[in-house]
Amino acid sequence: MNRELVREDETLDDLQLKGLHVIQKKEGFRFGVDAVLLANFAQVKRGARVIDLCSGTGIIPFIIAGKTGASKITGLEIQEEMVEMANRSVEFNGLEDRMDFIHGDLTNLELLKSLPKADVVTVNPPYKLCNSGLVNPNDKLAIARHEVCCTLEDVIIACRILLKDNKRMYMIHRPDRLADIITLMRKHKIEPKRIQMIHPNTKKAPNIVLVEGQRDGGAFLKWEPPIYVYNDEGGYSKQIDEIYGRE
Amino acid sequence: MNRELVREDETLDDLQLKGLHVIQKKEGFRFGVDAVLLANFAQVKRGARVIDLCSGTGIIPFIIAGKTGASKITGLEIQEEMVEMANRSVEFNGLEDRMDFIHGDLTNLELLKSLPKADVVTVNPPYKLCNSGLVNPNDKLAIARHEVCCTLEDVIIACRILLKDNKRMYMIHRPDRLADIITLMRKHKIEPKRIQMIHPNTKKAPNIVLVEGQRDGGAFLKWEPPIYVYNDEGGYSKQIDEIYGRE
Repeated sequence: MNRELVREDETLDDLQLKGLHVIQKKEGFRFGVDAVLLANFAQVKRGARVIDLCSGTGIIPFIIAGKTGASKITGLEIQEEMVEMANRSVEFNGLEDRMDFIHGDLTNLELLKSLPKADVVTVNPPYKLCNSGLVNPNDKLAIARHEVCCTLEDVIIACRILLKDNKRMYMIHRPDRLADIITLMRKHKIEPKRIQMIHPNTKKAPNIVLVEGQRDGGAFLKWEPPIYVYNDEGGYSKQIDEIYGRE
Repeated sequence: MNRELVREDETLDDLQLKGLHVIQKKEGFRFGVDAVLLANFAQVKRGARVIDLCSGTGIIPFIIAGKTGASKITGLEIQEEMVEMANRSVEFNGLEDRMDFIHGDLTNLELLKSLPKADVVTVNPPYKLCNSGLVNPNDKLAIARHEVCCTLEDVIIACRILLKDNKRMYMIHRPDRLADIITLMRKHKIEPKRIQMIHPNTKKAPNIVLVEGQRDGGAFLKWEPPIYVYNDEGGYSKQIDEIYGRE
């Protein structure tokens, strides 16, 4: 292991998946269950070309690299420091032939149009409405958690541009934004095709939604059985253990 | 009990709610759990004026009459025979001062505009797409189950016309139509405010959705904890027993 790729203020985290590791800032935005759920929800065929938006440290691309036969996975990220770190993770894992990270703004339509079209686009976008609440634009946590840099509509427009005809995007978001997600997808001719709700447990309302959309797809929306993160005893549910590949 | 109001081909069914009964055809469309769930989901304040669309035998108005302090509940129904039957149920229950049923087509906008505005509109619309599948228009079951007479958009336009400013509609439908429901509501400036999913049990995808929309409401969508109809042993869940008022 080439530990020299990891810096003083960073940690090297084991994804518990085919020996893959990802470099993260000790103090920055660290990946959670969201990334794992989204990577699990996305349907990626062998040989597929995947683009991940708002890619951060690259956690979703690394899980997809480990779990699927995708031939090429590109992450797009607006924070240059994160891109540099994610590319060191690529090097650490020896995945230079299948993965890369690009520094860029997803509202830059010329940049998007210059990229090769994708079979799959994944995105775990910032959860808050643009300019809602108190946000310090210099704060990297704020950039990751709020829509400082892009709105939900920017994200969906980007998916539309990046996807091949009839190919699919996968988004994770909060259920309170589902009406916006659906209306914006339809506005930009991405049809919502499949939804899965994530609940803390069987008694609680969903707090995460996974949405699959098909570029120029026909109208039919399939609902998956829900995922409950915790069981009645307060431990992780069997579903979550299976998604994490734990016994 | 004035049993003379009930005809040979009809049954008198006990709602198990404050002694209320509803007359139904032996062979016709009979109410199910849908009506009970919708009446439970709707928030009806004391003194409210309620309109129920696609009212059929009037089951939703009768449950609302029994459970709430609504001052006036009107059912609109396109099948004249059903309206006549529902009005006999009103008489049977002695609720002539609070309830009535009107024969009319909800696509008749002049009729809708002539009605007093409502605080609450409820609707359990036909579930199939207009003209989808094989439908015999002479068949009353077909009229109740398919959109022979109205589309989902017709229903939402009717709600828009019938509601007072900022007041709310409550719809029950199938989850596979949720993208259509949300986009049509927003098109007609009824904001989806609250959703509750009904699942057969904790392991299955939702098969019924309850949607609350507010006329000219602001964007925020609240999700309720789900309702599971059956428990793990295959009996009715506690939630359903509570909604039905069983111990």
